Amino acid sequence: MSLPDLDLSPTLVIGAGLLGTSVGAALTQAGVRVHLTDLVASHALVAASRGAGSGDPVDPDAVKLVVVAVPPSALAVTVARALDQYSHAVVTDVGSVKGTVLSELRATRTDLGRYVGSHPMAGSHHRGPMTARPDLFADRTWVITPHDTSRANAVLVVQELARLCGARTVSMGAQHHDEAVAQVSHLPHLMSVLMGGHLTEVPEAHLRLAGQGVRDVTRIAGSDPRLWAQIIAANSAAVRAELTAVQAALADLLDHFDDPDALTRVLARGRDGVRSLPGKHGVGPASFAHVVVEIPDAPGALARLFVDIERAGVNVEDVRIEHDQTRQVGWLDVHVTPDKRGPLEVAMRDAGWIVRDDAEDSEEDR
Amino acid sequence: MSLPDLDLSPTLVIGAGLLGTSVGAALTQAGVRVHLTDLVASHALVAASRGAGSGDPVDPDAVKLVVVAVPPSALAVTVARALDQYSHAVVTDVGSVKGTVLSELRATRTDLGRYVGSHPMAGSHHRGPMTARPDLFADRTWVITPHDTSRANAVLVVQELARLCGARTVSMGAQHHDEAVAQVSHLPHLMSVLMGGHLTEVPEAHLRLAGQGVRDVTRIAGSDPRLWAQIIAANSAAVRAELTAVQAALADLLDHFDDPDALTRVLARGRDGVRSLPGKHGVGPASFAHVVVEIPDAPGALARLFVDIERAGVNVEDVRIEHDQTRQVGWLDVHVTPDKRGPLEVAMRDAGWIVRDDAEDSEEDR
Repeated sequence: MSLPDLDLSPTLVIGAGLLGTSVGAALTQAGVRVHLTDLVASHALVAASRGAGSGDPVDPDAVKLVVVAVPPSALAVTVARALDQYSHAVVTDVGSVKGTVLSELRATRTDLGRYVGSHPMAGSHHRGPMTARPDLFADRTWVITPHDTSRANAVLVVQELARLCGARTVSMGAQHHDEAVAQVSHLPHLMSVLMGGHLTEVPEAHLRLAGQGVRDVTRIAGSDPRLWAQIIAANSAAVRAELTAVQAALADLLDHFDDPDALTRVLARGRDGVRSLPGKHGVGPASFAHVVVEIPDAPGALARLFVDIERAGVNVEDVRIEHDQTRQVGWLDVHVTPDKRGPLEVAMRDAGWIVRDDAEDSEEDR
Repeated sequence: MSLPDLDLSPTLVIGAGLLGTSVGAALTQAGVRVHLTDLVASHALVAASRGAGSGDPVDPDAVKLVVVAVPPSALAVTVARALDQYSHAVVTDVGSVKGTVLSELRATRTDLGRYVGSHPMAGSHHRGPMTARPDLFADRTWVITPHDTSRANAVLVVQELARLCGARTVSMGAQHHDEAVAQVSHLPHLMSVLMGGHLTEVPEAHLRLAGQGVRDVTRIAGSDPRLWAQIIAANSAAVRAELTAVQAALADLLDHFDDPDALTRVLARGRDGVRSLPGKHGVGPASFAHVVVEIPDAPGALARLFVDIERAGVNVEDVRIEHDQTRQVGWLDVHVTPDKRGPLEVAMRDAGWIVRDDAEDSEEDR
C-alpha cells in the first residue's frame, strides 16, 4: 500500500535520436506505453516504425515520465518546458553532463522535485533513430544523479526506467558525476586529441614508423569534434581542473626530464594508474598472457583459427588483430590467462599455425 | 667481381636477450654461422639451445659482422670494444635510439667506418632468450642509420642482415631516426603515461565508469618503466622537444577553453592527425564500419561466431572484444568495409546472433 506507483505508462520521450529511440524501444519491449516527439517529425515517425512507441499526441496530465534526449545545448530548456507542460510527470534527461543542466534549471525554477538527471553510459547524440536498439543499454552503467530536492518517488521512477532498459544503476550527485566523467572520459579524450593533433606536424615518412601504440593512444581522437566540443563545454570547469593537473604533471616531468630516477618514477606511476582500471570480471588487464598467431588475410582463415583455438580448450579473454601494412597477412593477438599460454602455443603450432612472440614490450607495438 | 662480400659467416651476436637471440635464430635459419656471447653465460647457452647459434669462442679475425644487442646504457661501450676486438668486422647495434650511441662513439674514436647503427622495430631488451623467435622481424621495419663516414660495404652488410631476418629496411640518419621515433613512439608513450599517472588520483568509484576509451589511451603506459626510462633518457633532446610542443598546445587549449570554436578546432585537428596515420594496405582507420555482436563467454562461442561471419562472405578487417565487467558476456566489434556492414548485420541476425549498434560515438566506448 505504501509502495510508490512505478507504472511508467505512458512515458513520453522527447528527442528521437539514438538514445531516445533506444529508450522508447526498450520500454515498449518491457510493456510500457511510450509516446515520442522530435523537432524533426520524420525522426519520431521512424522511431515509431521501429517499435519505439507512438508518434500520436499524449494527454499531458496522464504522462508519468518524460525522458529528455536532446542535444546537450537544448537539455535545460527542454527539461524546464516538460516540467511545466506535464505537471504530474517525473522528468529526467539522458545528457552526458549533469551539473550544467541542473544549475540552468535552478536559475529559472524553484521547484525541481520532479526532476532527476541521469546518464546512460552508451550511445551518443549524433546518431539517428535508425541506429537505435532496445538492447543498447543492456548491462551498461546508467548513472542517476538525484539533487537535494529530488522527491523519493522521482528517484525510484528513474531507477525503474534504467532497470526496464536492462542497465545497472549507480547513484551520485551531478557535480560528482561530472568530475568522475571528466577524469575517466573527457580528460582521456583530450589527451588523445592533443597527441592526435601533434601528428598533423609529423612528416609522412615518420608516420610510417608508427606502430600499434600511437594508434591506441589516438583512437578516440578520431570521433566527432562538434559533439565533443558540446560535451566538454558543458563540463568545462571539471575538465579544466583535470587538464590543469596534467599540465602541472607535464611541467614537472619536463623540469626533471634529465633525472633518470624521476623519469622512472613518472613511468611507474603511469603503470600503476593503468593497473588500477577495473578489468574483466575484476581481473586486471596486466594479468593476461599473449599468444600471437599469423593469419593469412584470406577467406576462412580467422574462422579456422578460432576453431583450432577452441579445440585447444582455451578460453579467449580478448583478441586483437595486427595488420601488416604491405603484405596481405595479419597477426592475431590472443589474450589468455597466463597458465593457458604454453598449452595454446603448443596446440597452435601442432595445428600448423605460425606462432610469434607477442613482443609485448616491443616499441613497434607501442 | 666488384660486388662486395655479403657472406656474413661467421657473425657474432653480443647479448642473448630477445633481440639478440632472435637475430641469431633468423641468421642461422638463413644459413649463416652464428656465435653468441652474453654477460650471463646461461643466456648464451639457452640461446644456443634454441638454434640461435653457437656458444663456442670464435676467431676474432674471422668475424664478418658483430650485432650488439645489449641494454641501451651499455651500447656505446660494447660497440667500441667490438670495433677494437674484431678488427675486420662490420659492427651494428639494434638499440632503439641511435644518436646517443653515435656521439658517445665519436667522443672516443676517430675511425667509425665499420660501424652502422640500426633499429629493428620489434622486440625489446627486457625479455630473455626463451621468448626469441627467428620470425620476430618478419615484415617489420628495420631502420638503418648510416653516418657520414660509414663505409659502403658496412651499410650493405647491415642491409643484408636485415634482409636475412625478413625485415623491410628504411635508411635515415641517426638524428632523423631519433626525432621520428620521438614523435611516433616516445611522445605517445609519455602521453599515455601522463594519463595513466593521473588515474592514480582518481577514486575507485569513478574508475568503474571507465570505458574502452581510457583503456586504449593508457594501454602502453602499462609497460616496463625501467626500460622506458632508458629509452627516453637516450633520446632526451628529441623527446623533450616534442613534449614541449605538446605543452604549448595544452597551454593554448586551456587559454581558449571557453571558446567553443577554438575547442572544436582543437578536436578537429586531433581527428586530422589520427586520419594521417597509415592504415592497413593504405586504407585509413576511419573508413571501416562496425558490426557489434553479442558473444556469450562460453566455450565455442567465438569459433561459431567467426564461422557464421565467414558464411556471410565478409572479410574481417579487424576485431575487438568488449567485455562486460559483471555479466559473463562480451561483444565482438567486427570492423568491415562500409559496404559490408548492412549485409553482415542481416546475416548475423539471421544466424540468431544479437547485433548491437556499435555506438562508435558513445562516451562509454571512449
